[in-house]
Amino acid sequence: MRHVYQRELEEVGCDLARMTVMAGAALRAANTALLSADLYAARAVIAGDQELDVARAARDNKTFQVVACQQPVAGDLRLLLAALQISANAERMGDLAVHVAKVACLRFPQCAVPEGLRGTIEAMGDAAVQLADQAAEAVEARDLYGARAVEKHDDTIDRLHRRLYAEITDSDQAWPVRTAIDLAQLDRCYERFADHAVLMARRLEFVVTGTADA
Amino acid sequence: MRHVYQRELEEVGCDLARMTVMAGAALRAANTALLSADLYAARAVIAGDQELDVARAARDNKTFQVVACQQPVAGDLRLLLAALQISANAERMGDLAVHVAKVACLRFPQCAVPEGLRGTIEAMGDAAVQLADQAAEAVEARDLYGARAVEKHDDTIDRLHRRLYAEITDSDQAWPVRTAIDLAQLDRCYERFADHAVLMARRLEFVVTGTADA
Repeated sequence: MRHVYQRELEEVGCDLARMTVMAGAALRAANTALLSADLYAARAVIAGDQELDVARAARDNKTFQVVACQQPVAGDLRLLLAALQISANAERMGDLAVHVAKVACLRFPQCAVPEGLRGTIEAMGDAAVQLADQAAEAVEARDLYGARAVEKHDDTIDRLHRRLYAEITDSDQAWPVRTAIDLAQLDRCYERFADHAVLMARRLEFVVTGTADA
Repeated sequence: MRHVYQRELEEVGCDLARMTVMAGAALRAANTALLSADLYAARAVIAGDQELDVARAARDNKTFQVVACQQPVAGDLRLLLAALQISANAERMGDLAVHVAKVACLRFPQCAVPEGLRGTIEAMGDAAVQLADQAAEAVEARDLYGARAVEKHDDTIDRLHRRLYAEITDSDQAWPVRTAIDLAQLDRCYERFADHAVLMARRLEFVVTGTADA
């Protein structure tokens, strides 16, 4: 029985990392669809999100069963409770990738991002995807240093957010209202996506050190 | 020992309901501050959010202790695991109220909401606050019918969201870009606030029926 339990615990990190990688891949695909105004690619991101929802439900179910049957304590219990929160973060990151894809769909055949703002949007998207990949690695390896690197890297997103907001509201450049709203929504998606990666990292800190934070 | 445990379980619903009521009150205050361009009231909402963060940390800590010490099973375990998620929802609702207050601060001494859109923004804010109050009642009483009413009531927000979006992008009315972005952000705050209330209701369903959903 005991080695079954050990395997169940090891599975937690793998499942959560896999879900986080899925969310990162979804955002990467959504960004490409957005910047290339590719309707089919955007629709594929929207349809693909179901897989992440299913993975989350399956993971939470397993977590619940392990807590109920094995009555874990201390570090194991912390891991399992944090797993419920981390899986929710990963699912929500997938939802945010879907939002980006939806903006691409809404403006097809036009590109939702005007030429002059492509650089900032691309950089934000890349930074958000990179955070997801870093968070996935840290979660799988229960790596505190990796978790702290995620929190630090989040500054890049903040900086890009300020730059984008200044570009959108630049009074010399009259963006159509619809464009401005699209960009503000995209900005918010990347920011929230990154926030969820940071929350994951904080929860990992709680698993490893036992110090509650997020 | 047993009656201590029972009291601990009863506390869960009370704490979660109290936190949800706090989030609803924060949004109500933020809406008033927003529509009356009241800087002091908006700042009070921002400062007051800490109380909700502290309440969430305290609740999660207690939940963790009860799971660790009492090794609950079945419905009790479901309640405690759902409590971790519901407390996260309530905290996030508080953060969204803060966002509304921040929009009010950014535009002071102007009002961020132009005259012609006050009606829709006010209605969205009221509907979101009402959902929080309904969710709080349902959580406290573990009331399935109340939980289902929350899910149903969410349609009002969706309808208002569509109306607001049409009003913002109305091509006869050239809103300044900054105003359009503010309104899109407010719209998103109310929608997400309502989403969290609905997630609470779904988790309550899981607590009562054992059927996983959200």
